[in-house]
Amino acid sequence: MALVGGRLSGDPRFSVRGIASLADAGPEELALLAAPRYRDQVGASVAGALLVAADLDAGLADPRPRVVVDDPHAALIPLLGRLHPPPTVRPGVHPTAVLGRGVVLGSEVEIGPYAVLGEGVVLGDRVRIGAHGSIGTGCRIGEDSLLHPHVTLYEGVRIGAHVILHGGVRVGSDGFGYAFTGDGHRKVPQVGGCVVEDDVEIGANSCIDRGSIGDTVIGRGSKLDNLVHVAHNVRIGPHCILTGQTGIAGSTVLGAGVIMGGQSGVGGHVVVGDGVRIGAKSAVFQDVAAGKTVVGTPASDAGAMRRAWALVPRLPELFRRLRMLERVGKAPEGGPDPSGQPGDGG
Amino acid sequence: MALVGGRLSGDPRFSVRGIASLADAGPEELALLAAPRYRDQVGASVAGALLVAADLDAGLADPRPRVVVDDPHAALIPLLGRLHPPPTVRPGVHPTAVLGRGVVLGSEVEIGPYAVLGEGVVLGDRVRIGAHGSIGTGCRIGEDSLLHPHVTLYEGVRIGAHVILHGGVRVGSDGFGYAFTGDGHRKVPQVGGCVVEDDVEIGANSCIDRGSIGDTVIGRGSKLDNLVHVAHNVRIGPHCILTGQTGIAGSTVLGAGVIMGGQSGVGGHVVVGDGVRIGAKSAVFQDVAAGKTVVGTPASDAGAMRRAWALVPRLPELFRRLRMLERVGKAPEGGPDPSGQPGDGG
Amino acid sequence: MALVGGRLSGDPRFSVRGIASLADAGPEELALLAAPRYRDQVGASVAGALLVAADLDAGLADPRPRVVVDDPHAALIPLLGRLHPPPTVRPGVHPTAVLGRGVVLGSEVEIGPYAVLGEGVVLGDRVRIGAHGSIGTGCRIGEDSLLHPHVTLYEGVRIGAHVILHGGVRVGSDGFGYAFTGDGHRKVPQVGGCVVEDDVEIGANSCIDRGSIGDTVIGRGSKLDNLVHVAHNVRIGPHCILTGQTGIAGSTVLGAGVIMGGQSGVGGHVVVGDGVRIGAKSAVFQDVAAGKTVVGTPASDAGAMRRAWALVPRLPELFRRLRMLERVGKAPEGGPDPSGQPGDGG
Repeated sequence: MALVGGRLSGDPRFSVRGIASLADAGPEELALLAAPRYRDQVGASVAGALLVAADLDAGLADPRPRVVVDDPHAALIPLLGRLHPPPTVRPGVHPTAVLGRGVVLGSEVEIGPYAVLGEGVVLGDRVRIGAHGSIGTGCRIGEDSLLHPHVTLYEGVRIGAHVILHGGVRVGSDGFGYAFTGDGHRKVPQVGGCVVEDDVEIGANSCIDRGSIGDTVIGRGSKLDNLVHVAHNVRIGPHCILTGQTGIAGSTVLGAGVIMGGQSGVGGHVVVGDGVRIGAKSAVFQDVAAGKTVVGTPASDAGAMRRAWALVPRLPELFRRLRMLERVGKAPEGGPDPSGQPGDGG
Repeated sequence: MALVGGRLSGDPRFSVRGIASLADAGPEELALLAAPRYRDQVGASVAGALLVAADLDAGLADPRPRVVVDDPHAALIPLLGRLHPPPTVRPGVHPTAVLGRGVVLGSEVEIGPYAVLGEGVVLGDRVRIGAHGSIGTGCRIGEDSLLHPHVTLYEGVRIGAHVILHGGVRVGSDGFGYAFTGDGHRKVPQVGGCVVEDDVEIGANSCIDRGSIGDTVIGRGSKLDNLVHVAHNVRIGPHCILTGQTGIAGSTVLGAGVIMGGQSGVGGHVVVGDGVRIGAKSAVFQDVAAGKTVVGTPASDAGAMRRAWALVPRLPELFRRLRMLERVGKAPEGGPDPSGQPGDGG
Repeated sequence: MALVGGRLSGDPRFSVRGIASLADAGPEELALLAAPRYRDQVGASVAGALLVAADLDAGLADPRPRVVVDDPHAALIPLLGRLHPPPTVRPGVHPTAVLGRGVVLGSEVEIGPYAVLGEGVVLGDRVRIGAHGSIGTGCRIGEDSLLHPHVTLYEGVRIGAHVILHGGVRVGSDGFGYAFTGDGHRKVPQVGGCVVEDDVEIGANSCIDRGSIGDTVIGRGSKLDNLVHVAHNVRIGPHCILTGQTGIAGSTVLGAGVIMGGQSGVGGHVVVGDGVRIGAKSAVFQDVAAGKTVVGTPASDAGAMRRAWALVPRLPELFRRLRMLERVGKAPEGGPDPSGQPGDGG
């Protein structure tokens, strides 16, 4: 309990061998109750004990040992670290790794099979490069960063400390820049840089383009999920959350702590203020002031938009009622109804 | 004909050297007519013979040999298998493959150049690992499964039999789980597993996260297209169809036979019933009962939503008609029109 | 100036060491002013000189040397080529590359570490294959084409000349084709080809499926951004622009010069005419005539749709006004209001 700072009720001698969901946990495991929607599963669960969010504790009549914490997900961090220690790091450079001239390795780095490091790459202490990593000329990676297998860094990319890049991440690829000439699109050289600051995590197969001129920047502590697209010259502030399949077009700026829901997007040259929340599947085409929550396409104030959405399925009814008014109230003998076309539900 | 169980009309001695679309087929090829929209192309096609869906046969006046089948796509399976035999498997472990301690290989496995298998990996009979595959410690892959080049399996992933993973698929990457503390997001260790059951196919560059605690599961016979995102603890039932660029947020459950249209998504902690169909580009945020078809964002009953969509472009007209009613019927001398703002089309 | 064909005002002896944005440029750099939204940044910029779009020149009061050009992005091409010469090509085959039987290499090709070329691959002059490239049996790649690291070409793919494929691109993967039989989905063999014509560029982690029967074709000069999905038998005309995370379902045809905004999609078996523009996040489900601009889901005429979108947030007001009319005008004593349900804002 000291580990999670929680409050214990029930038998204090209870010990657990693992943590699981209510549905999966066995008699020697601790089950998680973090959201109201799972409360109904408590009864049927055979879990030996419960880890319960404080706001769900009051209404819960259950005899099992129980640990009550303010934030069960935060409590999981030390618990899981104890129960599932991370795999041992084995410093060393695999004999099949190819290192270019002038590569500088920090202490205790681990470089996997078939990794390829270009000339002048600099790795901080304890950096780990997974199998088949391809690290372009002149890249720099800060201490304790972890690149899972199959990551590509184009030349000159700068990765901070404590960064995690998942399998298939591409950083520093050319931005999408062309000049249209009479007979086709000519490529504009993409000569800017790409900076991933400390404590960033980027999910599998996500892509971060380098700047055209100037840098693309992923701010300190920001977290990107899988299959996220960040175009050239985007600047993402610190502590942003970009969930799966989100995308940001060129030169857009995100402030601090912006949260983007799944499959949402932001158009090019847009400024999104600090703390803005963008709903899943939404598309932001205009600047958004700090602190706002927006949803929809084009994205707009969430409250107003949700009220409107609730009424969209009732459009046929709306047309019907309008037509009835037009007939009965205004022109009972078939007067002007200029727009009463087939299909309007009238 | 015996091969496809069809009915032949025309010269029974006709033989074909290939199968093609109506536009592409030559005089020695069989052309496919499977949908009404391509009926107009029959006349101009120089195909030597036709493979025709039964429901399109009646109205078709064409003198060429013709094979009529209930389901032309099903008929293609044996035909293409005969005309385009799959590439020969060449069992063996490429000398450049790196195998960790305790790897167990079934009979006739084929491991490509530069593949890397971690400690304790177990491969069933006839498993094929493409070039540059990276198979994490302790993974198990069932018999006859095929991994195309550049696949990443994180540690401990379990892949069933007869599974196909296309180029760049990532399975078992960390889910997107953080606890927000005052000064940033701290990573919650993702210690669950990832199970891909038998007969699953996963398209290029798709990503399946491991569970946070508990497993992520892709059910037997389900098919995922390219660039699909499956978050932690999602459970996909058997025989689901997830088309390109679909995404499913964490802890969501899909029943059996769910069909997701292209670029659609399902939010977190949602339950989608058996046989549900989700329209392309739709976003499901709430539970959907079995058998329903939903479209839109937020997704709602397809019939009602499509009727409403047809009316959305007529909103300006609606406002105009309403305003006219307000002026003429109710307040002819400029009475109360509290909301007649600029831009309402009035 | 001869380099960019522009008009110079100010000190003609000025020389620059680099190009940057207005915000980043230093006193020895040329800053770009290409769009009105950045005009406000001119005053604060310490750039030594300005590269200005002709239509922004007139209103600009600034003493610095200035180069005025019609299209600043086009002007960047020669300037950046001079200031940032591309990395030197080092022809040669890395000793770790694996070449199958019958591979034919043009002159001055460059093949990176751990690349794997299947039997019968044919590379034109000056082709470059990045680290870990996996080139399937019988692929052909035209002269001067560049494959960045981690590209997968399945067997038999044909890549034209001057093509650029970014990290993690997959070309020729199986299309998503199944026949539903009573107890599951059976895979329809995907035996068609995949053709990427000259001067195409494809962004990181994009996926192009091979045809089922017949070819998938990416037309000459078309540019695809990151994480784009192109399904089987799609035919993309010349000079199309597909921005990030767009997707095209099977057998769809795009004409010449089609532009797809970010995260947009086109359904299967659709014909999109020459010069069509599809708005970001839109979904096209029906044929679109040449030259049209469409937005929304389902996509429809952009002008009409945008006028309608502007009114969607006002639906609650619409219901309120309608209800007022019904009460006051038609049925003042509580007459029929059959649809006045809770939540309609009345």
